Amino acid sequence: NTMLVIDKEGGDAPTAAGSQKMVLKNPKGTRDFDQKQMAIREKVFRTIIDCFEMHGAETIDTPVFELKETLTNKYGEDSKLIYDLADQGGEILSLRYDLTVPFARYLAMNKISNIKRYHIGKVYRRDQPSTARGRFREFFQCDFDIAGQYDCMLSDAECLLILVQILQKLDIGKFSVKVNHRQVLDAMMEVCGVEKDKFRTICSSIDKLDKTPWDEVRAEMVGQKGLDPAVADRIQTYVVMKSQGDANAFIDQLRNDPLLSKSPTGLEALDQMRQLMSLCGCYGISEFVSFDLSLARGLDYYTGTIFEATLQGEGNAAESVGSIAGGGRYDDLVGSFDPKVSRSGKIPCVGVSVGIERIFAVMEAKLLKEKEKVRTTKTQVYVASAQKNLMEERAKLCRDLYLAGIKTEQSFKMNPKMLDQLQYCESYGIPFALVLGESEIQNKVVKLRDITTRAEELIPRDSLIETIRRKLQETQ
Amino acid sequence: NTMLVIDKEGGDAPTAAGSQKMVLKNPKGTRDFDQKQMAIREKVFRTIIDCFEMHGAETIDTPVFELKETLTNKYGEDSKLIYDLADQGGEILSLRYDLTVPFARYLAMNKISNIKRYHIGKVYRRDQPSTARGRFREFFQCDFDIAGQYDCMLSDAECLLILVQILQKLDIGKFSVKVNHRQVLDAMMEVCGVEKDKFRTICSSIDKLDKTPWDEVRAEMVGQKGLDPAVADRIQTYVVMKSQGDANAFIDQLRNDPLLSKSPTGLEALDQMRQLMSLCGCYGISEFVSFDLSLARGLDYYTGTIFEATLQGEGNAAESVGSIAGGGRYDDLVGSFDPKVSRSGKIPCVGVSVGIERIFAVMEAKLLKEKEKVRTTKTQVYVASAQKNLMEERAKLCRDLYLAGIKTEQSFKMNPKMLDQLQYCESYGIPFALVLGESEIQNKVVKLRDITTRAEELIPRDSLIETIRRKLQETQ
Repeated sequence: NTMLVIDKEGGDAPTAAGSQKMVLKNPKGTRDFDQKQMAIREKVFRTIIDCFEMHGAETIDTPVFELKETLTNKYGEDSKLIYDLADQGGEILSLRYDLTVPFARYLAMNKISNIKRYHIGKVYRRDQPSTARGRFREFFQCDFDIAGQYDCMLSDAECLLILVQILQKLDIGKFSVKVNHRQVLDAMMEVCGVEKDKFRTICSSIDKLDKTPWDEVRAEMVGQKGLDPAVADRIQTYVVMKSQGDANAFIDQLRNDPLLSKSPTGLEALDQMRQLMSLCGCYGISEFVSFDLSLARGLDYYTGTIFEATLQGEGNAAESVGSIAGGGRYDDLVGSFDPKVSRSGKIPCVGVSVGIERIFAVMEAKLLKEKEKVRTTKTQVYVASAQKNLMEERAKLCRDLYLAGIKTEQSFKMNPKMLDQLQYCESYGIPFALVLGESEIQNKVVKLRDITTRAEELIPRDSLIETIRRKLQETQ
Repeated sequence: NTMLVIDKEGGDAPTAAGSQKMVLKNPKGTRDFDQKQMAIREKVFRTIIDCFEMHGAETIDTPVFELKETLTNKYGEDSKLIYDLADQGGEILSLRYDLTVPFARYLAMNKISNIKRYHIGKVYRRDQPSTARGRFREFFQCDFDIAGQYDCMLSDAECLLILVQILQKLDIGKFSVKVNHRQVLDAMMEVCGVEKDKFRTICSSIDKLDKTPWDEVRAEMVGQKGLDPAVADRIQTYVVMKSQGDANAFIDQLRNDPLLSKSPTGLEALDQMRQLMSLCGCYGISEFVSFDLSLARGLDYYTGTIFEATLQGEGNAAESVGSIAGGGRYDDLVGSFDPKVSRSGKIPCVGVSVGIERIFAVMEAKLLKEKEKVRTTKTQVYVASAQKNLMEERAKLCRDLYLAGIKTEQSFKMNPKMLDQLQYCESYGIPFALVLGESEIQNKVVKLRDITTRAEELIPRDSLIETIRRKLQETQ
């Protein structure tokens, strides 16, 4: 008497305990990856990991949940999106919201002050999901971070370089990277007349400018956050500014700005930005990077440079896929876990996080368009039988192939039909079939069939392995 | 005024909200993987995935949490170990307990009746952790499963074959695989006089025999579970039985057993076991596999063959590392999600799950013993500067190397010390350094230093890439 409700896309539908209604679905905002999607995902990960390894990054892993307090006071207005675990006795836990805070906890706990690491893992946010736009509640982040006390912008530039290299290698269309500096933002807010305790919340409003028009952002600043309208209007004159072409000229312009030039920390940050943009020139990535005062980034923990990469949709410029990667400098996060660190200096960090969900959606659409056939297995040979009662003979042939390291499949039926076996090879793109029959067994030969050309030849059992190896090399 | 408590191993210590005391630790029963551990982990995964791919397995992925009801009534007495998420509005969720139930949910939801897939992912159990013995609350499972309606034991044998191949390839010492059949167990309990509604709970008791002596298990059966002592004693005569050498002789013995021979389902299961053991012979793995009546497996969902692999400790036979993999047939699990499946037949499944935590501990100890140096990066070249103020020159040289696909690192300091740069190369095992100085830049050359031999030579800038490529090939 059980009822079945199929609801792949549906909303939250809690069922009462003991109810007869059974919902067959994955949780809202999550996804299963089928074989083809996994093949694409592995390809994307491989490309990204190759780039990380190109730069000598090591990798670490942390648990999917942390003590709840580890995540407290790290994410500003977004903290409400954290998933908590039920209190079943013992520690109070939450699912990780990103990979950055666990990384900082790891550094503080293990007294590590120098590392260059990447980490690919799932993170969790109780956001309003939009699977069509690639927004999920469970999604991957691919993070690269550098911890260490350095006296120049090389580590920040390294993050931008890796980001550009990844997006180039993925070959998913035009992209651009916006860069800004939290101390430039803070200086701008200061000289515009924002009170210091409103810096972070006004920053959150500015962060919405990539999706929301100025008028709405202004309304939020003035209406919800109580900002003086005149201050908001001054902010507007800055947040429309960005470098086009020569970053030096843009930085000169900001240095000479009558208001901004009054802020010593602002000027210092502008010097850092000048060095960063110059290093981008040395790395040959200037064409992708612009210094953009509208970039704010929502998270509380950033302290210096911030960056964000945006992908432009194919053809139509308006069809932007939006932000696909972001990052920045967070010099105080490790210290927030360990007062000893804060006392004896800092463990400064800078990093970049690539979100693969949108990249993945673009790759999937691209493959569909190109009608490229994605192989989901690596099988080289299929062992088939042309007659009944050859199950054990097939098994023995498989054993020989496995011992030779040849990737082999066979039917799990006792007496599979010839047509089914060959169709399986075709649908999975297996290049060769080895067909066994009574006469082949008696004559100590095997029939080798090329699945594409349908050509068949008899091969002696004792030269079978070398023949197959040669054939496989030829087809590669 | 914050206090810091470092407690890496410690027990559950919830802190009151608003407390000043901050605990710097990862959650109880979980672990971070450092760079060296990750290098070993990747090696273990690669070996296991190679084996799965050797057999034509595809891969899928499912979310880390499921609707709570998806996991309900699947795990028998172990259900109490499931992690629940807090009710924050919306769906009621739990962390997955294994990869098998999500797999069955995936098959039912997507109407898939045939698949051979592997899945490597973290699973969660609120167990009493023993990190020393490799028991964690968050741990990996590496699962291989075959879904499909087949008329012989080839798919069951495939699981055993893969299991043996994995343990051979991992090269972590002697192992053995116990095999049994739930219908043989059920027949045994029936003929011994266990009431049918006690089958699963008595099964759970028998499952403890690998760690607990018979007397204690018997006490649990009789004391806690109310079994007639005479019935328990009859059970004992069976659970000590296992095949040694020739499985056929053992199966004959069971077929002729005066009690067991009265159970038609038991006899049918023995025929299946005979075919399975015969296929193990064809695959050349008989020496590892024994038919063992003491094997029960705790989970509710098994319906046919069950298996478990045990690793023997090095040298001392008593020093057993214990169970490292297990699996079996679960023909009714997919149907439990979809009444239509149950009505129209079944989607039978069989699979094996390898737990890497213990394997990983053995590998780690082995590497430590052999003092093998594990490289945690793949860097080929380090760009160093011999003088001050060469930051931008270094960056340009790095750019050329990256464009050529050469894995390159440099210091993030503006003016790094020569000694620090060379020590970095040594400690990370980077084979070559390229040293830049004013004179080299003027003469359009670079000094190439072999880190191991300390030999140095000047290479013209325009033949640098080809020289490095050649050198790298020579060192491989």
